Amino acid sequence: MQKILKENPTTILLTAALAAALAHFGGWGDTWVFILAALGVIPLAGYIGSATEALAHYTGPKIGGLLNATLGNAAELIITLVAIREGLLELVKASITGSILGNLLLVMGTSMLLGGLKNGSQRFDRKQAGNYAVLLAMTIMALVIPSFFGHSMGDEGSVGVETLSLGVAGVMIVLYVLGIIYSLKYNNSPISAGQEETSHSKPTYSKTAAVIVLVIATLGVVLLSELLVGAVESVVSQFGLSEFFIGIILIPIVGNVAEHLVAVQAAIGNKMELSIEISLSSSLQVALFVSPLLVFISLAMGHPLTLMFNPFELVSLGAGVVIAALVSMDGESNWLEGASLLAVYLILGLAFFLLPVAIQ
Amino acid sequence: MQKILKENPTTILLTAALAAALAHFGGWGDTWVFILAALGVIPLAGYIGSATEALAHYTGPKIGGLLNATLGNAAELIITLVAIREGLLELVKASITGSILGNLLLVMGTSMLLGGLKNGSQRFDRKQAGNYAVLLAMTIMALVIPSFFGHSMGDEGSVGVETLSLGVAGVMIVLYVLGIIYSLKYNNSPISAGQEETSHSKPTYSKTAAVIVLVIATLGVVLLSELLVGAVESVVSQFGLSEFFIGIILIPIVGNVAEHLVAVQAAIGNKMELSIEISLSSSLQVALFVSPLLVFISLAMGHPLTLMFNPFELVSLGAGVVIAALVSMDGESNWLEGASLLAVYLILGLAFFLLPVAIQ
Amino acid sequence: MQKILKENPTTILLTAALAAALAHFGGWGDTWVFILAALGVIPLAGYIGSATEALAHYTGPKIGGLLNATLGNAAELIITLVAIREGLLELVKASITGSILGNLLLVMGTSMLLGGLKNGSQRFDRKQAGNYAVLLAMTIMALVIPSFFGHSMGDEGSVGVETLSLGVAGVMIVLYVLGIIYSLKYNNSPISAGQEETSHSKPTYSKTAAVIVLVIATLGVVLLSELLVGAVESVVSQFGLSEFFIGIILIPIVGNVAEHLVAVQAAIGNKMELSIEISLSSSLQVALFVSPLLVFISLAMGHPLTLMFNPFELVSLGAGVVIAALVSMDGESNWLEGASLLAVYLILGLAFFLLPVAIQ
Repeated sequence: MQKILKENPTTILLTAALAAALAHFGGWGDTWVFILAALGVIPLAGYIGSATEALAHYTGPKIGGLLNATLGNAAELIITLVAIREGLLELVKASITGSILGNLLLVMGTSMLLGGLKNGSQRFDRKQAGNYAVLLAMTIMALVIPSFFGHSMGDEGSVGVETLSLGVAGVMIVLYVLGIIYSLKYNNSPISAGQEETSHSKPTYSKTAAVIVLVIATLGVVLLSELLVGAVESVVSQFGLSEFFIGIILIPIVGNVAEHLVAVQAAIGNKMELSIEISLSSSLQVALFVSPLLVFISLAMGHPLTLMFNPFELVSLGAGVVIAALVSMDGESNWLEGASLLAVYLILGLAFFLLPVAIQ
Repeated sequence: MQKILKENPTTILLTAALAAALAHFGGWGDTWVFILAALGVIPLAGYIGSATEALAHYTGPKIGGLLNATLGNAAELIITLVAIREGLLELVKASITGSILGNLLLVMGTSMLLGGLKNGSQRFDRKQAGNYAVLLAMTIMALVIPSFFGHSMGDEGSVGVETLSLGVAGVMIVLYVLGIIYSLKYNNSPISAGQEETSHSKPTYSKTAAVIVLVIATLGVVLLSELLVGAVESVVSQFGLSEFFIGIILIPIVGNVAEHLVAVQAAIGNKMELSIEISLSSSLQVALFVSPLLVFISLAMGHPLTLMFNPFELVSLGAGVVIAALVSMDGESNWLEGASLLAVYLILGLAFFLLPVAIQ
Repeated sequence: MQKILKENPTTILLTAALAAALAHFGGWGDTWVFILAALGVIPLAGYIGSATEALAHYTGPKIGGLLNATLGNAAELIITLVAIREGLLELVKASITGSILGNLLLVMGTSMLLGGLKNGSQRFDRKQAGNYAVLLAMTIMALVIPSFFGHSMGDEGSVGVETLSLGVAGVMIVLYVLGIIYSLKYNNSPISAGQEETSHSKPTYSKTAAVIVLVIATLGVVLLSELLVGAVESVVSQFGLSEFFIGIILIPIVGNVAEHLVAVQAAIGNKMELSIEISLSSSLQVALFVSPLLVFISLAMGHPLTLMFNPFELVSLGAGVVIAALVSMDGESNWLEGASLLAVYLILGLAFFLLPVAIQ
């Protein structure tokens, strides 16, 4: 028991998952349900991640890369799909933005801060990281450019806006498939970085165990997402928080803590290159895979999600991607750079928090 | 005959040039005139290019560089001058934007895609390409910054806007002259890249033949431009396309196909550095030479063109130049990067296409 | 006397400082007071700089770095504090912007132009310069991001805007302190670059003389700032200039000429790396130290300054920082690059000049 906790400290949060169910059925109030469900998602997302890695080990690097690239964001995908069903489209778009920002500013910042404090100035091969950063910059620009055209095309639901969103989603999925083909050919994938590195170690689970863990953890995330999303509106109105703030800051953190820890640990272990690649590759997955998938599924669900981001999301994404590109192409990091990345994230968070609920 | 077609496959399009005249005088309708005239410009622009190169061979590298830098965009310059005379100012501004975007996204993307498919991951000396990219970034920012001030200064035709446009055009021309002086001194020109490389081969024409070809091809472009521009408004109203779409996508492609082919061929021949330099240098020529020239000539023509770009042009140029700078400073390209550049171009094209005609 | 003038040519402007007092009390009119006081600040700012450096020599590099980082912008800080007292908040914000722009475009441009003309193409280690540029990019984005949120939060004086400004100022000051800790530890400071280089030479003053010069020059700047700021409004209305133009172009030049000369001289002496580091580090000081200090002091003074920049400032800062980052990460400079930087500054200056007074 103690050994498990030491190896995976988030395991203790499984009790939160159970407590969330109790809170829901015991009528503890939506606030408790929200907090406990959010905490409960963290370890389950971690289990999905480690089970996927174990499976990847058995299937070999090629199919393994594919598994990592598709299941890497499973927890967030499930939460956002439940949110789409409930019609919380602003929350979904905010969580796409927040997931990219979290990877580029929060995770990269924490990695460089802690890695720098531990190891001093850290150099890394700028070539690979720069390559990923350039791909990411292009992808995110492609993702957000249509937002600048949306307002001139009419309302959210107009045919032009919907067509453009579907077009962008289609182009993104094609790029994603090309990215997978590229990674199968060169064994070096901009959309599933870090996988190779970790696959050398012995897998945590046997093949069967991995599948069972994957299924159970996924079901758990589905149930907790129902509780979480069901409680959002009540929390929003009670605390004066906005759907937007919850989507852009809270959801992405909850859904990705496990993945984030891997990047930070790599930085502390002086593998800054790996750490940066995980952050960039995780953002690429969100832009190229999660967001188009949400567009298509939401259309099928009858709550069509458009890729029209609000000005706050656009400014944040623009700033985030330029900063991440500069940092990645720089070839060197230190704790001051990490602190600056966190400062940008902090200021964005403060601004999102202070935005009046009405206009978000 | 077959040999000519093999060496220069666009020669066959000369028949389109003749057919355009037939269509015009035979009353085939404006759509046919437009399409045939557009196709007909392609080979003629190519002849202007090869005749210029041949002349450059005889005049030596210094005057040759000057010739390339001034005649390199002759076809586009002629089309836009005719458009100015007809008062199609939005089309002209769109074609300036589209020409820069076409070089940075379409040509660079196609080059990296095909070059990467043929040669795998391609490295290039980032120093020179980076240098050009930095110059281009500054130039384009200088070109568009005034657009942000225009709206606060009053209407399109106000004194402030006109003064600022002339000021910017003046600064651009001075930078252009400095660029030429720089290239004469260092034999390495950011505004006529690729010329040296090609001048080693035997010229296609004798000196006299080159002059004759240049004159005839130029006259041909002038005539076809008249037909093309004359048919634009009819095509616009008939197909629901916008002046803006024609200016930003069609005109730049038609006027630069020949030049584009050179860049793509260089990439396929694994000379990625040369390919990138041609794209960047071609964009620099448009920003530093074509656009100020249009401002000055349009003033003399009584249809003053201001350098106030619309928000769609600004967003596209901003995205294009940041992406091109990152790609050029990266030092390595692969087909996935090329595909991403094309994806950005495609999404922009789709957005331009879907923009309602009214607001463009 | 001649020797002094040769060593420090701005000494002659001390007569302007005296003449400014004469102009004020002799009733020569506000225009003369303004011009003479502006000229008079230049040599006094220079004396503050050299006295600080002399003190830094005696206190050792650590406290010396701290002195440089805090007193480096003393003249500008004094002028802006007087302006805050008079309620000229637009002028103050414009001068923050203008100071950053002046360092990134005017000083870096002049350095690369003159350095390039003297030494040809100049290479520099892109690592350090790139590192500073990345820090600066993050800092300036953190500084301006809130401006995008301000309009949605209500009026200038609303609680949300004020809270966000104070939050940003707090984060900036923390980053500044971290920057100082970093520089004390690694003897290599992004916020007081160039200091080490100059501290090898013998100091200009003895310890006592340095303190006396510092006190007298500071008092002189205080007095001249009173005259300068007192005359601003009269000059504004008389010449049709705007508070904004004076703040963004004139004040930053006057307050920093001495520092600017050091950067340019370093470039001419083929120390391009040092030159770029001075420009970047000087901008960092303004963003991390001067601007939050003004926010806090202005609050105490009862004229709270918010960090909500106008769209013209945002566009200029965005363009400036992207260009500076590209130029610094490029690793090579030449006079054409310098001329392009100056062209961007010139066009911005022209646009600021042409902006109607009413809307600034």
